[in-house]
Amino acid sequence: MYKISLITGDGIGPELSESAVSVINAINDKLGLKFDVTKLSAGDKALKESGKALPDETVDTIKKSDACLKAPVGESAADVIVVLRRILDLYANIRPAKSYPHMPALRDDIDMVIVRENTEDLYTGKEFSLGDSAVALRIISENASKRIAKYAFETAKQRNSMKKVTCVHKSNVMRITDGLFASSCTEVSKNYPDILFEQMYVDACAMNLIRQPEQFDVIVTTNLFGDILSDESSQVVGGLGMAPAANIGDNFALFEPVHGAAFDIAGKNIANPSSFLLSIKMMLDWLGTKNNDSKCLEVGQKLESTIFNLVKTGVKTKDIGGTKSTSEFTQAITNML
Amino acid sequence: MYKISLITGDGIGPELSESAVSVINAINDKLGLKFDVTKLSAGDKALKESGKALPDETVDTIKKSDACLKAPVGESAADVIVVLRRILDLYANIRPAKSYPHMPALRDDIDMVIVRENTEDLYTGKEFSLGDSAVALRIISENASKRIAKYAFETAKQRNSMKKVTCVHKSNVMRITDGLFASSCTEVSKNYPDILFEQMYVDACAMNLIRQPEQFDVIVTTNLFGDILSDESSQVVGGLGMAPAANIGDNFALFEPVHGAAFDIAGKNIANPSSFLLSIKMMLDWLGTKNNDSKCLEVGQKLESTIFNLVKTGVKTKDIGGTKSTSEFTQAITNML
Ligand SMILES: CC(C)[C@H](C(=O)O)[C@@H](O)C(=O)O
Ligand SMILES: CC(C)[C@H](C(=O)O)[C@@H](O)C(=O)O
Repeated sequence: MYKISLITGDGIGPELSESAVSVINAINDKLGLKFDVTKLSAGDKALKESGKALPDETVDTIKKSDACLKAPVGESAADVIVVLRRILDLYANIRPAKSYPHMPALRDDIDMVIVRENTEDLYTGKEFSLGDSAVALRIISENASKRIAKYAFETAKQRNSMKKVTCVHKSNVMRITDGLFASSCTEVSKNYPDILFEQMYVDACAMNLIRQPEQFDVIVTTNLFGDILSDESSQVVGGLGMAPAANIGDNFALFEPVHGAAFDIAGKNIANPSSFLLSIKMMLDWLGTKNNDSKCLEVGQKLESTIFNLVKTGVKTKDIGGTKSTSEFTQAITNML
Repeated sequence: MYKISLITGDGIGPELSESAVSVINAINDKLGLKFDVTKLSAGDKALKESGKALPDETVDTIKKSDACLKAPVGESAADVIVVLRRILDLYANIRPAKSYPHMPALRDDIDMVIVRENTEDLYTGKEFSLGDSAVALRIISENASKRIAKYAFETAKQRNSMKKVTCVHKSNVMRITDGLFASSCTEVSKNYPDILFEQMYVDACAMNLIRQPEQFDVIVTTNLFGDILSDESSQVVGGLGMAPAANIGDNFALFEPVHGAAFDIAGKNIANPSSFLLSIKMMLDWLGTKNNDSKCLEVGQKLESTIFNLVKTGVKTKDIGGTKSTSEFTQAITNML
């Protein structure tokens, strides 16, 4: 039995959470796994109701669970997700970008994953006002850089792919901080002689993600560049509708869609739940590997291929030009599981 | 008579510089303007020969000229261009992205310009090692933010466009620095009631540049985000082959292609000179406006439409899949002027 904590979020978050719960129930009923889901509040609604975007009980319950699912959160997102990444030391943010059928990808042969450092860079909140100016500290450490580089190479090793790691930085301008990031990655690369290692400036990468996205395998980069490039790469494969993310630490992990709360389409039962459902697939992979639970890995495969097969038939939710409601789309998946 | 300083650069820089000089000569001969070009050295070759990527004489000659053209520079690029931007206080980096015929743009109706703050952010070189860590200072000032915002609104005012300024930042994470940038832009926007003002997070912008690039008009942003987003937007309109940039201050300006030295195709006479030639067009616009010289403005128009008409017939250089050499392409333009 796995205890799953679920932040239901804001905007389309609650609808997506319902979809996620339906799919998890179907997995429990049909596929012989046992997940116990606890819904938790965090985000704009929590802030309004309790004065805290991330209530203490939410954090406590997450800590007692085996893994956390997080639906999108509204304007207070940073107070929830950036804080959770830090206090749970979820140092690796894993963002796959794959061409799926019937999605408007720039090409149909894209299959990459961005491994984003998740704990430092400009995300530590160290900022100050100085008269009419302001300064933020961009912090890069050797430890965190090596740790994420190792994660990236291990990821490349496990993928059925071209086995390449591209280290993205801007060391021509940030010679010391990104110099340290680049040299740390280079050092780690020496332990992986079978994996190709290349470096690319972040501006060139932003360009190449459009020009030749099929040439990327694993990208490893610092926090803020990872934020920008992963949103870009999601759009390169056709939009945030199929973009899950895993925030992974040594002992715990949190899974969430890359997209936001999408208030403009909230409450209409038209949002595509695929990104969140693919986040469940990433959770199954992580739990399976961590606990040596081959059943989890199997079910993860099955969930992904079910989503794949469904979208292959052209079935889409209304938000992306299809005819299905969120619940109809979810039902189609639970039927096929 | 205008004195033009020309940094001939590295890689494909010298070839592009020859192309630029041919076009300027044709303008002198056929169109009744008078430009006097002085070639200058800076970059990798200068570093090797003189120990300085940016020799003092180069800076002195630039300062005595009316405007500077800069071909791409190699690995020492930052020591040349970042320093020039700072010492000449070229605070506005203007990067248009337009769909041109026969270029593989994502759509044919894109016409935007990125107005990038060019003097601060993470580009001031304030970086330190601290044991196993490193820290860089991200500096944002109210003055520089308001100055660039004003430039962006003035740009929007002059364009035949939808008259919209999109301020791009990441104030949900960098609350103080990007908070200051966003509030400075917002304050300036109040002086331009006829221009639409919107704000967008940088990750969303990286996505929207692919999803709906036609909806952008003028983007104003901080230095590093501008670096990343302008390379991305160049590719959105089909690649760096048609991407000029202007670095503009109150009294001086420097014009360069967005692309780099492209060592892999250097010396082959196959590089597309259009980005550099479009930089000349931006120079003509700037000189014309500054000096109230309508002839310059006319010739600028003429140069752009000549390039447009040439690429419209499908003529391309070999580096982008065409059949023309750099010099043949240049000759076609000088013939048409
Ligand atoms: C909400 C925001 C703080 C967050 C980030 O910048 O990390 C989001 O954009 C993401 O990528 O998960
Ligand atoms: C060469 C480099 C320092 C420069 C920058 O980052 O500004 C370049 O990428 C550019 O955009 O002009």
